[in-house]
Amino acid sequence: MKSRIVDNATRVFLEKGFQGSSIQDLVDAAGVPKGSFYNHFSGKEELAVEITRRWVVDGGLDGLYVRSGAPLPRLREHLESAAARRFAEYGPHGCLLGNFSTGVPAECGRLRAQVAAGLEQWTAAVAAALAEAREAGDLHVDTDAAVLARYVLDGFEGAIARGKVSGDRAVLDQWFDVTFGVLLV
Amino acid sequence: MKSRIVDNATRVFLEKGFQGSSIQDLVDAAGVPKGSFYNHFSGKEELAVEITRRWVVDGGLDGLYVRSGAPLPRLREHLESAAARRFAEYGPHGCLLGNFSTGVPAECGRLRAQVAAGLEQWTAAVAAALAEAREAGDLHVDTDAAVLARYVLDGFEGAIARGKVSGDRAVLDQWFDVTFGVLLV
Repeated sequence: MKSRIVDNATRVFLEKGFQGSSIQDLVDAAGVPKGSFYNHFSGKEELAVEITRRWVVDGGLDGLYVRSGAPLPRLREHLESAAARRFAEYGPHGCLLGNFSTGVPAECGRLRAQVAAGLEQWTAAVAAALAEAREAGDLHVDTDAAVLARYVLDGFEGAIARGKVSGDRAVLDQWFDVTFGVLLV
Repeated sequence: MKSRIVDNATRVFLEKGFQGSSIQDLVDAAGVPKGSFYNHFSGKEELAVEITRRWVVDGGLDGLYVRSGAPLPRLREHLESAAARRFAEYGPHGCLLGNFSTGVPAECGRLRAQVAAGLEQWTAAVAAALAEAREAGDLHVDTDAAVLARYVLDGFEGAIARGKVSGDRAVLDQWFDVTFGVLLV
């Protein structure tokens, strides 16, 4: 029962947001009785913490650490495929980390901390690729790699959010062109 | 009554999100009876459309079009003061456009369109400053000004979202350093 709830919750949270998802929505999506929810989770926040953790684990971050091929094309491929894969699986509902960054209320401190930690894990993986690119002489900007990685991910999340609200996925293509044609040179 | 509801709704939407704000929350914040809400608005979405429109009108965009002083410092000042002013007025709840970009469900098409239009108005104002900077010889990147403006605003929104979820406002300072020290040169 627990894994059925977890397996179906990502879609619910993406479609309805953290605030808009009720326990009823979550058990309906899993096809389990409402009473069983509280056998496994103290509440919606605990489930969302687990979903956030999985989102990052399934995010392909390890691929960024693999020193094979040119690092900047590998970073671009990582970001493009992350966006494409989640779009194919869940539709135009954006990134869970981005949605939760703006949409989790202050009283859910554990969930906010998990989202922030997920962004930092992602930052570390992007920073590793940027540091490798610098070593290889492919990146000339001398900004600290972690600061630059955060900059890249903040823009990526912002572009996904704009694509979501405008329904225009071309904004993401433009974002890639500027990131890899202007910023990371 | 209508203006009392509108005047108090921004804070409610920022603190609780679109999905997390009930009509009851909105009338409580205004100190008016619940029944009066529907005399003025068909529902929560219509009120949120009006709040979004006002957010942009009050956003100081006209200052970006005033050709006085160096355009890039004027753009930086616009963005820094937008963030600081809203933080001072509403607290660490982020930007209404950013929060609504990720947090408005697909069925609220009018509100999504209003948010997207607000981002485009802001884009146009930032693009005007960037075009002026290019004319003045202060900006050498040859990316289309509107594409570059969207890139800047997407990053700004992403950095604000990260600052919100992490509770770390320093990420915004780093974002400014990269934008004006590395990207817009």
